[in-house]
Amino acid sequence: MTTETSTRPAKVAMNGVDVPTLLATIGAVGDARELAKFTFRAKGDWISGAHSRVSIRDYFGAGAEQDRERTMTVDADHTTVLCGDDEGPTPVELLLAALSACITAGIGNIASARQIKLNSVETTVEGDIDVQGILGLNEDVRNGFSGIRATFKISGDASSEQLRKIVEQSIARSAVFDVLTNGVPVDIVAQTA
Amino acid sequence: MTTETSTRPAKVAMNGVDVPTLLATIGAVGDARELAKFTFRAKGDWISGAHSRVSIRDYFGAGAEQDRERTMTVDADHTTVLCGDDEGPTPVELLLAALSACITAGIGNIASARQIKLNSVETTVEGDIDVQGILGLNEDVRNGFSGIRATFKISGDASSEQLRKIVEQSIARSAVFDVLTNGVPVDIVAQTA
Repeated sequence: MTTETSTRPAKVAMNGVDVPTLLATIGAVGDARELAKFTFRAKGDWISGAHSRVSIRDYFGAGAEQDRERTMTVDADHTTVLCGDDEGPTPVELLLAALSACITAGIGNIASARQIKLNSVETTVEGDIDVQGILGLNEDVRNGFSGIRATFKISGDASSEQLRKIVEQSIARSAVFDVLTNGVPVDIVAQTA
Repeated sequence: MTTETSTRPAKVAMNGVDVPTLLATIGAVGDARELAKFTFRAKGDWISGAHSRVSIRDYFGAGAEQDRERTMTVDADHTTVLCGDDEGPTPVELLLAALSACITAGIGNIASARQIKLNSVETTVEGDIDVQGILGLNEDVRNGFSGIRATFKISGDASSEQLRKIVEQSIARSAVFDVLTNGVPVDIVAQTA
């Protein structure tokens, strides 16, 4: 009598993703769910007009305070058409950037976990906004986007069907897609010096 | 019989805001509402792993295609704790940055329109997220933030009450606050090369 064992090849790093470590990380969080609690932070400073700079560095996650090696900054401003100085993207454009980046990051991870080599991911994200809302000209017009449209063009060493499913899975697990489509409670406190 | 006229002093530029032009712009849009329709855009490219770069430049608004003088880019990545390379803020941190920037920009404009000199605006924005959702470990946990908390600390040449009202008015007219709290329809198409 012989014993047959069926083994699948171990998954390897690809697309810039350390797949064994990614899978081990998911397993570790699965074994210790409290590691899953994260708090991300951003700190902003007004500079002039509609221009501000936001700093991003530390966060809480995996059971401890985490400190990156460098502080990342994002400048934002209004456009000159709306009397800003174009010193950075508008805040609403940062929402579009966040959506692009979140789903693209997911595509990178998911393709790699499925051992599919990616060639490229190109996105276009558009948001429509009627600024009568923010300008206080029409109470029936919302302040924010009325709708967002996006196209994710993906190329890789797999069938169109497999590639499309990677995009779909990334959308299904996207934190930013969830927040933008479902909203989130926001609590703001104003302090005066 | 004499005619008395009551005139208020013309509002002047301050805090880096060209107040006469801002008020004229609001008036112009009020007179021609079709100028209020804007479409903002972001274009993303996957680089490696969870790292992507988003470019922001052109948009439609004020009745015409608008092209900025330069292309602005935002890099985003996952953190090393979640197997990224820290090549930029995480996508969810960009949401926090957008909220900080939007309300701060509004504070700059509203304070100036009210002719109140600002000294500083300092923000802290935090978002809680249980990554069991995005890691696919628990179907009962949402992918996105469970909640966002923010503090806006404002200093300027006005009473605490006046300064607090500026923050409140900025929140009431914030496009990003609206989108984050109320959500927006998002339509995504996947294309394969």
